Amino acid sequence: MTVLILTCEQDVTADMVVAQLHKRGVPLVRFDPGDLPGEGALSAEYVRGEFRGYLSMGGRVVSMDGLRSVWVRRPSEPAAHAPEPSAWLSAESGQALYGMLECTQVPWMNDPSAAAKARLKPWQLRLAHQSGFPVPATVITTYPRVARQFADQYRHVVVKVVSGKPPSEPPMALPTTLVPPDADFSDVAAAPTLLQRYIAKTADIRLTSVGNESFAARKVAEPGQVDGRYGDTGHTWRPVDVPGRVARAVAQYRKFSGLAYGAFDFAEDSEGTWWFLECNQGGQFGFVELETEQPIADAVAAWLSAPGE
Amino acid sequence: MTVLILTCEQDVTADMVVAQLHKRGVPLVRFDPGDLPGEGALSAEYVRGEFRGYLSMGGRVVSMDGLRSVWVRRPSEPAAHAPEPSAWLSAESGQALYGMLECTQVPWMNDPSAAAKARLKPWQLRLAHQSGFPVPATVITTYPRVARQFADQYRHVVVKVVSGKPPSEPPMALPTTLVPPDADFSDVAAAPTLLQRYIAKTADIRLTSVGNESFAARKVAEPGQVDGRYGDTGHTWRPVDVPGRVARAVAQYRKFSGLAYGAFDFAEDSEGTWWFLECNQGGQFGFVELETEQPIADAVAAWLSAPGE
Repeated sequence: MTVLILTCEQDVTADMVVAQLHKRGVPLVRFDPGDLPGEGALSAEYVRGEFRGYLSMGGRVVSMDGLRSVWVRRPSEPAAHAPEPSAWLSAESGQALYGMLECTQVPWMNDPSAAAKARLKPWQLRLAHQSGFPVPATVITTYPRVARQFADQYRHVVVKVVSGKPPSEPPMALPTTLVPPDADFSDVAAAPTLLQRYIAKTADIRLTSVGNESFAARKVAEPGQVDGRYGDTGHTWRPVDVPGRVARAVAQYRKFSGLAYGAFDFAEDSEGTWWFLECNQGGQFGFVELETEQPIADAVAAWLSAPGE
Repeated sequence: MTVLILTCEQDVTADMVVAQLHKRGVPLVRFDPGDLPGEGALSAEYVRGEFRGYLSMGGRVVSMDGLRSVWVRRPSEPAAHAPEPSAWLSAESGQALYGMLECTQVPWMNDPSAAAKARLKPWQLRLAHQSGFPVPATVITTYPRVARQFADQYRHVVVKVVSGKPPSEPPMALPTTLVPPDADFSDVAAAPTLLQRYIAKTADIRLTSVGNESFAARKVAEPGQVDGRYGDTGHTWRPVDVPGRVARAVAQYRKFSGLAYGAFDFAEDSEGTWWFLECNQGGQFGFVELETEQPIADAVAAWLSAPGE
């Protein structure tokens, strides 16, 4: 039984998991949807109630009934590398590939339906509340008046992107930013705006959830630092124990969301409380493993080898 | 409690349902995501474990905890009508709107996760088999050799689009077409191709499934006619009874797919068998109702008024 890894060619995080699967002697096929059609090929037959399907990549063939699990890491857009790429060819190729994979009963990390829902940040906040995480007060609005009232009420608030996908042409990062006291909120009417109470944090926490396992890491924050993802403070990620309350909330979140994998970001305040900021269902873990030596890639490999066990 | 209808301005099918909801005295708000932000506005607050959200459109406000049901008819792309539309603004607006709606426990016609999966045609074929429909032998492949073998084996085969979304610039329809006996299959390597055994049909069948109710209509086919969606044969849609076997299969399909609404297309052969061709989770019903006088809009209004009853 074979593990299918959907990812692009340059993916160091996938390389780490591939190495662990090799160690475990588990067969795998690495397939980039961008190479379909081309180096990648597929066939699905529906005849007299039977379904037979297979994928091939560079001569390696994997049958749909020989699949153990599917890991969606960082796949390219289907048909992205075709000689004449088009939106239409991507749609046809994506339908064929993901439609065929959905015909199996194979476990996914993460299931596409669960992943799509988990990407909705407003829904994440609700689910985080319901799972038992402390969540900073948040508003998402197109009303300048509502934004102004929220900022007045909480005094220190940050503004964040809602969708988490900043425009890429030209490439541009939109870090979470403190809202100045004299901010003009009239532009809120032009785009939904997410404001959140600012947590004065002592550390950033990254918790990587893999099946039943959790790996938490902590990085000390400089006083006044807002977005830990940008800028080098000289501090490094260190392993940290997961408080019982957080562990229970992670278990709830996993259950409600149906995610096999999630990368949680928290802000730790001066009282040691971990405030939920977001859960990225496709978040990186390579940088954490390199600094903390936590065996995350091995945990992913273990789950893919024996999903659900 | 209010019904929320997500659709564009020009939508006669929605108008038919709106008229029925008015008759029933059920409050509704019609909201086009393309008008957000602008004429449409929203706000969602997450404070101390509570979630409060509301939408407004042309002065009409609907609270998230006052929602009875959501009907996704034919919504525009979020922010499509903004003064400066962009992919980024659409992503932000879509996240805010659909993320906020997912925070409610309200029943959808159709639930977005179920709808996304139901659009995958390869998965439809599998599910149709499993639900008990007869399905014509089908292959989806990028292998010219496999396509040729399939055509040789079944002799009369048709070629169809996989994703059902033909390119729109320039606007272009891709009807299902008979494959000529001397076809050259080498282009199959350039795009996943769907071939299906041709059913010599006596009639087209459209079955509209609304909650527990089914409305079937039949239109006589001209001998040799392949795609009933194009061209005028002079025949009209007439109501037809649903055979017991088909009714049971529809119920199974509904259960497995989680769809509250589906438009099934069948080809009826000379023995009276209804062959499953596809189930469109967002398919039109206005044209069927106009010709058959079947009360489909009223059934949709009834479901939206009392979902799940």
